Amino acid sequence: MTLPAEFHDIAKRVNNWGRWGTDDEIGTLNLVTDEVVREAARTVRSGRRVPLALPLQQDGVQTGMIPGRVNPLHSMVQINQELFGPGTVATSDDVVTMGLQAATHWDALTHASHSGKIYNGRSADTVTAHARAAFSGIDKVRHVVSRAVLLDVARAHGVDRLPGGHAVTPHDLEAAEEFASVRVRSGDVVLVRTGQMRVYLGGDKHAYGYPSPGLSVRTPEWFHAREAAAVANDTLTFEIVPPEIEDLWLPVHALHLVEMGMLQGQNWNLEELSEVCAQERRYAFLLSAMPEPFVGGTGTPVAPVAIL
Amino acid sequence: MTLPAEFHDIAKRVNNWGRWGTDDEIGTLNLVTDEVVREAARTVRSGRRVPLALPLQQDGVQTGMIPGRVNPLHSMVQINQELFGPGTVATSDDVVTMGLQAATHWDALTHASHSGKIYNGRSADTVTAHARAAFSGIDKVRHVVSRAVLLDVARAHGVDRLPGGHAVTPHDLEAAEEFASVRVRSGDVVLVRTGQMRVYLGGDKHAYGYPSPGLSVRTPEWFHAREAAAVANDTLTFEIVPPEIEDLWLPVHALHLVEMGMLQGQNWNLEELSEVCAQERRYAFLLSAMPEPFVGGTGTPVAPVAIL
Amino acid sequence: MTLPAEFHDIAKRVNNWGRWGTDDEIGTLNLVTDEVVREAARTVRSGRRVPLALPLQQDGVQTGMIPGRVNPLHSMVQINQELFGPGTVATSDDVVTMGLQAATHWDALTHASHSGKIYNGRSADTVTAHARAAFSGIDKVRHVVSRAVLLDVARAHGVDRLPGGHAVTPHDLEAAEEFASVRVRSGDVVLVRTGQMRVYLGGDKHAYGYPSPGLSVRTPEWFHAREAAAVANDTLTFEIVPPEIEDLWLPVHALHLVEMGMLQGQNWNLEELSEVCAQERRYAFLLSAMPEPFVGGTGTPVAPVAIL
Amino acid sequence: MTLPAEFHDIAKRVNNWGRWGTDDEIGTLNLVTDEVVREAARTVRSGRRVPLALPLQQDGVQTGMIPGRVNPLHSMVQINQELFGPGTVATSDDVVTMGLQAATHWDALTHASHSGKIYNGRSADTVTAHARAAFSGIDKVRHVVSRAVLLDVARAHGVDRLPGGHAVTPHDLEAAEEFASVRVRSGDVVLVRTGQMRVYLGGDKHAYGYPSPGLSVRTPEWFHAREAAAVANDTLTFEIVPPEIEDLWLPVHALHLVEMGMLQGQNWNLEELSEVCAQERRYAFLLSAMPEPFVGGTGTPVAPVAIL
Repeated sequence: MTLPAEFHDIAKRVNNWGRWGTDDEIGTLNLVTDEVVREAARTVRSGRRVPLALPLQQDGVQTGMIPGRVNPLHSMVQINQELFGPGTVATSDDVVTMGLQAATHWDALTHASHSGKIYNGRSADTVTAHARAAFSGIDKVRHVVSRAVLLDVARAHGVDRLPGGHAVTPHDLEAAEEFASVRVRSGDVVLVRTGQMRVYLGGDKHAYGYPSPGLSVRTPEWFHAREAAAVANDTLTFEIVPPEIEDLWLPVHALHLVEMGMLQGQNWNLEELSEVCAQERRYAFLLSAMPEPFVGGTGTPVAPVAIL
Repeated sequence: MTLPAEFHDIAKRVNNWGRWGTDDEIGTLNLVTDEVVREAARTVRSGRRVPLALPLQQDGVQTGMIPGRVNPLHSMVQINQELFGPGTVATSDDVVTMGLQAATHWDALTHASHSGKIYNGRSADTVTAHARAAFSGIDKVRHVVSRAVLLDVARAHGVDRLPGGHAVTPHDLEAAEEFASVRVRSGDVVLVRTGQMRVYLGGDKHAYGYPSPGLSVRTPEWFHAREAAAVANDTLTFEIVPPEIEDLWLPVHALHLVEMGMLQGQNWNLEELSEVCAQERRYAFLLSAMPEPFVGGTGTPVAPVAIL
Repeated sequence: MTLPAEFHDIAKRVNNWGRWGTDDEIGTLNLVTDEVVREAARTVRSGRRVPLALPLQQDGVQTGMIPGRVNPLHSMVQINQELFGPGTVATSDDVVTMGLQAATHWDALTHASHSGKIYNGRSADTVTAHARAAFSGIDKVRHVVSRAVLLDVARAHGVDRLPGGHAVTPHDLEAAEEFASVRVRSGDVVLVRTGQMRVYLGGDKHAYGYPSPGLSVRTPEWFHAREAAAVANDTLTFEIVPPEIEDLWLPVHALHLVEMGMLQGQNWNLEELSEVCAQERRYAFLLSAMPEPFVGGTGTPVAPVAIL
Repeated sequence: MTLPAEFHDIAKRVNNWGRWGTDDEIGTLNLVTDEVVREAARTVRSGRRVPLALPLQQDGVQTGMIPGRVNPLHSMVQINQELFGPGTVATSDDVVTMGLQAATHWDALTHASHSGKIYNGRSADTVTAHARAAFSGIDKVRHVVSRAVLLDVARAHGVDRLPGGHAVTPHDLEAAEEFASVRVRSGDVVLVRTGQMRVYLGGDKHAYGYPSPGLSVRTPEWFHAREAAAVANDTLTFEIVPPEIEDLWLPVHALHLVEMGMLQGQNWNLEELSEVCAQERRYAFLLSAMPEPFVGGTGTPVAPVAIL
């Protein structure tokens, strides 16, 4: 099996290899300049803060379908332990085991490869068990703070959630911009709401994953044209399930992560944010979505916060 | 052994139990109002962002001295795996096992107890292996975004780092305020720099932990008077090691977490921030330091970012 | 809720507290004397070895129903890594995270408590997050090597497997003895086959757990009378599900582990053994079922082997 | 760097590829026939059982020198939890994270590769993060039960332990045979005692690893000639540290695992066994050393037991 010509055509048009130098490891995050952040801070008006992460717990979004991607297993190593003797101050300590891509997360650029390559044309073989990602590991992303725009596609469509299998198109994104009276600009983080998270929050883990709306293979060109710095949505795999083009799985991963060098976020809970933006009639705000700096990580849990 | 009278006297003066209602689980974070956040956003001038987390890696700050508190163990479950057949898009996935208090972290209010109690007078027995922290778990903290002030005690003293065992006093904190031309106010997150992190960054893990400067048992009253929302520093245990008062270990934990209900941060890397603040001659800025929402967690790794 | 009088009556009759001294931590394993082992070795005739453990893998018997009891998550930290330079000998290394009671396992005596007590009348509070089991941890069991007897209750009944909910009674055990022409004697490990494992091996994890045959609350007295050293079976929880006596869950755990101080094994795969015993027309053999010596462990994975 | 001619010469002489068919995945364990096991059972005389595993605990033999090979981290997910309501039977459950090669263990044949090959001439690329070891994983070893011989080289030399760097030679092995009045024969598991474990048991983890006695590169030919089924010793890496031939690390791993297809055991505690064998004046006995059947595992913790 090889990737179809259609994929390669798009890949050529959105490719950013070399754009920020041959040594670059962070791709479109280069678009987030100090100026962008200064402007982003100016969008803060109400001071409201909306968290976008799902709770980290064993009963999380993973169903076992993706091998090795385990929900957080959280256990105790100390409980009110008086380490310095009876009657002294006691402490409790806990440990966790979890997949870095298991909950609300960023994919690092190295999370995907195709045709043996990762972002910036490096060999996929630079990802090893020993070093994990030697290049473009999530630790190379020093910070994700920028203006963010909520493109509430579901709300713009007048529905609670898009149907499973729905392909979010550039046209959908522009309709959401119009609905929000906002325009995505260089350095923005784009949050695309499909409403699919309501399936998980409603208790059906399996239907959350399948079938799912997601981003069409035609959207990377749109993000490329607008110079988005990163994109996140409220689905399990980011992509349309079952796939838009038969047997072509994860094309948007390959375009965003490998070709463009653009971070992708998944399992972001945009429900409360959707309510708040509708109330405040504002869809652009300051976002902090800092990766945990796992050295060589191909992903990271993230606890994003929108500051309105 | 019992806690000394001196401790109980201070405890009485700083106690916040019931201040925000008997149901409250977040303590002094109640001081971070929308107004505080609006003001905090206005401090952003240059748009520079300074990350404050240490890299997450097996070669981290833990030495094995604190049982169960393990450095991040990061391993691979997929490496460029073509899950959908040869020639398709490939993915890499990783998992981690780590102590929630092992690296740059927040202590949840439930991380400490004394005399059988946690914050707001609840029984310490509400922390169990099954539920972890039923009350005041780190997931109850929806967000930590506020104005932060760097009190660069080491720089104000004209030294690279304070000596091991040095007790940072209210007088030190005020000298650092004066040096910075800033005054801590209600809802601020206070970052106290001792310079001790230089010992770890210089390669000596053991000397990083012992001996260490830290916050004197007299400082909680000062934070209480100023209405700080949270405090973080650049040491392994937050406290003076060996302890300021013989055999009295972790008194500041007990005062901050149990009595005041105030989050504490440890192992924050304030070195780059110290340089940037000195360059920009500004010591107050916007801080985002979002907890990962571990349900019932008695701590959390955190990737704080100062936005100047 | 309290445990019913019926339970307490049986408990009194099977109680072994103090029988091997107030310091004893291993209970009925004291019955396995050197003489018992010498005799056990003499049962070896064909030299055939039959392993009784399920494969350790993420797709194991746990379904998430028992919180925290996770199937083995197995990941790589080195893959053919030439740690000493290119062209040198390479090594691969792996790590695992798993529940100690997740797969084929022994329950340690401390796995269960009732009325605040563990085996030998010690306080259940001696199990802590810090020390785990301070007494009767699985590491206190130096070895499990003895004669074992397969009581193939399913085969004696002439069925592939007993129906879900079936209570294996002393009468069933004696019928299986008669079928096998063997009699359980002091120091034996008794393996009770219900055939329930066929449900799991057939692919239905959920039906494996519920409904399930198991040992009746009347069997502990029988094991007590016969002086069994340990008992294992081929079910998820060892007990009848749903329970034999309404709302009385885990009574056999409480009787075996707490009152008698007798190890229990679960998820043992007795299918191949059943075939071999039928072929060889022998149901007594040498068994090695060594615990992994987790210090303070309340259970352990085990890879038992029958040597015929 | 390439492996020296000397290595390749030995490799050619001990190579077993194809000896048990091109599909074989277990190598020299094929030598353990039913007849060998029958004979092994006949060696049991006293019925004494001697366990050979180190306790599994966080304070284990690993020092952090070998990346990713973590000592067991053991934590609690339930402590006396009354899952079915107050007053019901309570249970305690625990989880562990550990390196499969971290404590007393067997190396699977796939633990080492050289020149791109694993045992039986398969490509080393068959070890992946996804499948772990597709061939010759530890799960392919159904059982390790055989006669074992203790070659107590230290005691035969009249010393407590051999000095660090000492190369155990075929001559040493034969002297130990003579001392023991035993001769290694086809299908035996050979336990080689250097006494190095005393360094660890004495509290010095670092000196346990370096410098260490180990097996000379000349011993694989001896094991090959005697048709040993597996070999274990009482050192951290099995091999001489620093290496016998400058810059040639892990040659014995490559010869045993890759060329011969022979399991290797490390960190076996042979101290008590040495005493017992000296008392009983017997050095051959029945051994059960069952691998935990990790699917695709490149190693496994093991709790071996000698039955005398």
